[in-house]
Amino acid sequence: MSKRIDYAIGIDIGGTTTKFGIVDHRGDILYRGVIPTNTNDTIEPYLEELYQALTPAINEVGGIKMIKGIGIGAPNGNFYTGTIEYAPNLPWKGIIALAKLVQEKFTVPAALTNDANAAAIGEMMYGSAKGMKDFIMITLGTGVGSGIVANGQLILGHDGFAGELGHTIIVPGGRLHWSTGHHGSLEAYASATGVVMTAIEFLDQHPEDSLLCSYKKEDIDSRVVYDCAMKGDKLAKEVYAFTGKVLGEALANFVMFSSPEAIILFGGLTKAGDLIMKPTREHMEKNLLPIFQNKVKLLFSELREADAAILGASALVWDMKA
Amino acid sequence: MSKRIDYAIGIDIGGTTTKFGIVDHRGDILYRGVIPTNTNDTIEPYLEELYQALTPAINEVGGIKMIKGIGIGAPNGNFYTGTIEYAPNLPWKGIIALAKLVQEKFTVPAALTNDANAAAIGEMMYGSAKGMKDFIMITLGTGVGSGIVANGQLILGHDGFAGELGHTIIVPGGRLHWSTGHHGSLEAYASATGVVMTAIEFLDQHPEDSLLCSYKKEDIDSRVVYDCAMKGDKLAKEVYAFTGKVLGEALANFVMFSSPEAIILFGGLTKAGDLIMKPTREHMEKNLLPIFQNKVKLLFSELREADAAILGASALVWDMKA
Repeated sequence: MSKRIDYAIGIDIGGTTTKFGIVDHRGDILYRGVIPTNTNDTIEPYLEELYQALTPAINEVGGIKMIKGIGIGAPNGNFYTGTIEYAPNLPWKGIIALAKLVQEKFTVPAALTNDANAAAIGEMMYGSAKGMKDFIMITLGTGVGSGIVANGQLILGHDGFAGELGHTIIVPGGRLHWSTGHHGSLEAYASATGVVMTAIEFLDQHPEDSLLCSYKKEDIDSRVVYDCAMKGDKLAKEVYAFTGKVLGEALANFVMFSSPEAIILFGGLTKAGDLIMKPTREHMEKNLLPIFQNKVKLLFSELREADAAILGASALVWDMKA
Repeated sequence: MSKRIDYAIGIDIGGTTTKFGIVDHRGDILYRGVIPTNTNDTIEPYLEELYQALTPAINEVGGIKMIKGIGIGAPNGNFYTGTIEYAPNLPWKGIIALAKLVQEKFTVPAALTNDANAAAIGEMMYGSAKGMKDFIMITLGTGVGSGIVANGQLILGHDGFAGELGHTIIVPGGRLHWSTGHHGSLEAYASATGVVMTAIEFLDQHPEDSLLCSYKKEDIDSRVVYDCAMKGDKLAKEVYAFTGKVLGEALANFVMFSSPEAIILFGGLTKAGDLIMKPTREHMEKNLLPIFQNKVKLLFSELREADAAILGASALVWDMKA
């Protein structure tokens, strides 16, 4: 009889840092660590750094024989191919066969998926979406990411790229997106970047009456907008009201697609709490058909920011055959 | 050993007529029939009529013992509950426990789903989506319906009402929908009703130069617009170009949700062929992120109009346990 293998490694690759954890079957993260993602523009030194950082933790739990596998969440990560493809925010260019490279380096099976998908799996197994079979996870960070679960499974699409809800067009002919060149996508409004753009637009229209006037334009970031709103600044609060309107309209469309039990919001913008939640909920409900109204739970994630993705990535391991 | 039961009955309930067929395992429809849907505003006489119409065909194949079950597609049909709920285009009001009633009447198991979902299943098993695991079926008829398949399964949502893509908002603040009261939904543009509204709007703006001027406004239907376009009428062709633009923008958003291998278009509007297909494809591609471009097959259904839904409804039967 073979010994039961008790741990999975979950890795969350972001543009700046890579976070990892050794996770047990209950979803407890026993060891955590972090390395920079962007010190090298080739993958090999990064892999070596990851190996060096993880080895002490692996030894703590009894060596690599105790590790069933490694799950990875990464921007533009493709579950089907195990590759990261042309990720604009990562230092490695082109197509990187990361699952294969990690598998060879660590001599255990490795699987890869999109970072937002990993976070959705984390929410489903250990967070706000526990026990749900149909929900949508929306990450409101620097950009807008999404992971969609229907029938208890991630929607990956025929090519592994499903769930790019940040790039759906919500305001046709609207604001130009800084990298895609499209007009009016959700990400151009409901991201940290979008909030700052809205604040500056509003300030240009009403330059007289806001705390934001005391900042240089280039110093206004989403944190500044948040602080001003918390101090009761009318214009800053209107920024959130407008952001929530666009987000709510987008969510209504998503609900009429997959009729989820819940939409879980996650990421930096959710720190604004009711400032963003109230208008989002109002405009979502307003745009829904009656059969969908007052049914969808609109929730904030309950997991710590990095944990959802680490846990979700580790969950890829438990799903591995044999 | 029990005798193999060889046939399924598929029923497609529409606002005006109900079509049915006896279907074998290969998807051949052996007997077909049709009864009116809307002669009675209670369900019992309708059920009796259906029973009388089906009985001769059932006897032809060897009696009810040869029928494994009955599958039904109906507007607002809910697979989970087997009920039709508040269908605006059907004569029976409120919640109708149709699966249960049919099961009692015919003494074989019955299952029910939304009509667009039934059509999607029909396409997957016997039509343009054969062998596909990820596709979206869009019905462009009097209204706009949709059935979404991901991971080889219908997306039903937590409540059974997923896939109301006709009611997603594509033109915020746009045209008022005649029954929902929302502005700018896909159905208000990409349906037969929407095409007529567009034609009349265009005609009001340019009353001078169209074949459509020779019709009284109340006589303009989608058939008339189509005929004028086929005769080369510029304004009528622009109606299709505009309809395709709105539809293409909507499809791009849908693609970024579930990344389907194909989108199958179905229903009356598809008779316009390239008049609708070309602008739809152009505007879909234009609004997609590069990773999705030139990948999604945009296809017309290959099944006869009623057959997709009859076959899809019958497929519910093959999926029944035992």
